[in-house]
Amino acid sequence: MNNWIDRAEKVIRRCEEVACWTDEPGHITRTFLSPSTRDVHACLRQWMEDVGMAVRLDAAGNLRGVRPGSQPSDPVLYLGSHIDTVPHAGAFDGVLGVVLAIALVEALENRRLPFAIEAVAFSEEEGVRFGVPFIGSRALAGTVDAELLARRDALGNTVADAIREFGLDPERLPEAAVGHGGLGYLEFHIEQGPVLESVHLPLGIVESIAGQSRFAIVFEGRANHAGTTPAPLRRDALAGAAEWIGRVEREACMTPDLRATVGSLEVQPGASNVIAGKVLATLDVRHSSDDIRLHAVASLLDAATQIAARRGLAVSWEQRLDQPATPTDPSLLAALERAVTRAGFPAHRLASGAGHDAMVMAKICPSAMLFLRSPGGISHHPDETVLPGDVAAALAVGVAFLEEAEALRA
Amino acid sequence: MNNWIDRAEKVIRRCEEVACWTDEPGHITRTFLSPSTRDVHACLRQWMEDVGMAVRLDAAGNLRGVRPGSQPSDPVLYLGSHIDTVPHAGAFDGVLGVVLAIALVEALENRRLPFAIEAVAFSEEEGVRFGVPFIGSRALAGTVDAELLARRDALGNTVADAIREFGLDPERLPEAAVGHGGLGYLEFHIEQGPVLESVHLPLGIVESIAGQSRFAIVFEGRANHAGTTPAPLRRDALAGAAEWIGRVEREACMTPDLRATVGSLEVQPGASNVIAGKVLATLDVRHSSDDIRLHAVASLLDAATQIAARRGLAVSWEQRLDQPATPTDPSLLAALERAVTRAGFPAHRLASGAGHDAMVMAKICPSAMLFLRSPGGISHHPDETVLPGDVAAALAVGVAFLEEAEALRA
Repeated sequence: MNNWIDRAEKVIRRCEEVACWTDEPGHITRTFLSPSTRDVHACLRQWMEDVGMAVRLDAAGNLRGVRPGSQPSDPVLYLGSHIDTVPHAGAFDGVLGVVLAIALVEALENRRLPFAIEAVAFSEEEGVRFGVPFIGSRALAGTVDAELLARRDALGNTVADAIREFGLDPERLPEAAVGHGGLGYLEFHIEQGPVLESVHLPLGIVESIAGQSRFAIVFEGRANHAGTTPAPLRRDALAGAAEWIGRVEREACMTPDLRATVGSLEVQPGASNVIAGKVLATLDVRHSSDDIRLHAVASLLDAATQIAARRGLAVSWEQRLDQPATPTDPSLLAALERAVTRAGFPAHRLASGAGHDAMVMAKICPSAMLFLRSPGGISHHPDETVLPGDVAAALAVGVAFLEEAEALRA
Repeated sequence: MNNWIDRAEKVIRRCEEVACWTDEPGHITRTFLSPSTRDVHACLRQWMEDVGMAVRLDAAGNLRGVRPGSQPSDPVLYLGSHIDTVPHAGAFDGVLGVVLAIALVEALENRRLPFAIEAVAFSEEEGVRFGVPFIGSRALAGTVDAELLARRDALGNTVADAIREFGLDPERLPEAAVGHGGLGYLEFHIEQGPVLESVHLPLGIVESIAGQSRFAIVFEGRANHAGTTPAPLRRDALAGAAEWIGRVEREACMTPDLRATVGSLEVQPGASNVIAGKVLATLDVRHSSDDIRLHAVASLLDAATQIAARRGLAVSWEQRLDQPATPTDPSLLAALERAVTRAGFPAHRLASGAGHDAMVMAKICPSAMLFLRSPGGISHHPDETVLPGDVAAALAVGVAFLEEAEALRA
């Protein structure tokens, strides 16, 4: 294991090195094809070439290093994750999966495998710059469409503009797509949550990526003078929304593995001496079972209707997202499970509450994910970290998985 | 009563005429000494002079018309209200009290009274431009201090600048003060709430102006990923704040005449897929009994502490206002009660939940207020209105009050 720890520490150092390239000095912030992306590409390209990979940058800005198989006709196993970040991010979300892929190729040394390995640094996953995620993996999946290319960032530039400005050619996006012949896609990613830490495990096998429902909800009452309107005569939109938020929290507590969150709330007019006339809230509901998720959503919208009716409020909503759960490919899941067991760890399964590139890659090839414990469950935050021992465990599992993948091929 | 109805309709027309002078076309918005204030002054000055009053503009921008008493040594009865508005206001809040004062003087015709009447159009009561209210009445009370004069508006201009820019001289503010010899101050004002409408009465006698406590409250938890953090492991600041808002509402429902309001709430980071890490809320508590108010405040802050502790949140607060209740002067209250009864209406008493110039004037002379029913309880809104019959009732009560005030003088 000592060898693995050395390699793990190198992986962590490399993630920290990549974190120095940022759009915003003093923070880690890197959006789709921003100037600092170029520096990250230079860095990763060097590391990929150092382990003998042939490197190219596709038209979506994905940096892709290929380690050939034994024969040119061998299928490709994709390993990767993304290199963009949320604003004021940590150093490991995304990048860790790319650097780990390179470390795995390095660990293989001269060993010949009956498949090629393509390490992919996806250009975009977080959805920060254009409000939609997965631009990088959608290019591999061949689902970048005119609507996506025409989306504009805050400055009015389209996705196509951003690609051209980076020196790439959106016309050549079709060449980035990989078709359906891939052996599989494996993504290493920090858990971004506290579950593995709470069960004292370094690694978790993602058995599915939860489906998501998102809604914008509006409670409308009547704004009025806070000093002159007696409690029974009020139609307080915030008091109604608050009651409903309690209901959302209870639903999540009572339903195993359900995530239900009101993360944003805007109160109008929003003065200390004026009763709230209008509240705009968001609802985010996730579960690996679409049935359970849709049932919870229906129950929460029904509760909003009832609370509003009892209080003389109007309530309305608009669905913003309805994304079904993505189960992991069963044979890849089984291979990953065997690899984890062979490497000496408990094969703990969990659902991913967050979306990932693996969800998009699952449309074109068998896909699986391995989570690394997130200390403190901290994610999307400068304090985000990962333990060297857990990275070592992931490397050991990765190599075992490549051996299992040989069997898949056979 | 026909005569009163004609006069009442004239009062309403005049309020609507004043409402045409605005800082913001399409809305009624008039802040302290804004350009449109000059037009309102011209209008009111004409109406005051038409009924024989001697008019002057004091250094705080208060327009003051005097109807002399029988002798120069006669004391002064002040009648008035304010002519500034909140943004996007209605036509009656404030202005009605000024126009009614002029209508009362008109209704007196040549009748001689043993006191002078000074009708005052206070320049500022709402606190919009400089974040502090009562600039106009503080000038009469002699409490405009250096701190007030140095306060700045959003453009960086001080109160003193605003006075100078309007062509007035802040050095002459002491001349605006009236000392302690006044016979009394009576203010007519719309109720700004639904109480009189709910008991089907045109008028209400204000027996006190409620005391107010205002707090800024901060709940702090931990921002985290909405998809990956299970409910039991969350420290959701918004869920905690929502529970507390429910507690605030219950306190108000369970305590007679208590007003307790959370009117503003800011959620950080405020994204649909991020658990709220921090919530900034306001608390506004009012009651005509200071004991009851302070008890409610203590109970609500204690509840915040307990809710936060149970949820692993931190909570802190800062008091922004602690203003004791202002009881109406007992002999003026009795005179007003007799006037209401003589005019043929039930002498319904109520507390004012809002602050008024009468609160400031009470520091220098006996002060009282008469509320007119607010249809729909609508206030600080373009739909704010007043019924002609209720204005007629107020005029009849006003004249009866002036007769009662003769007795006060005797």
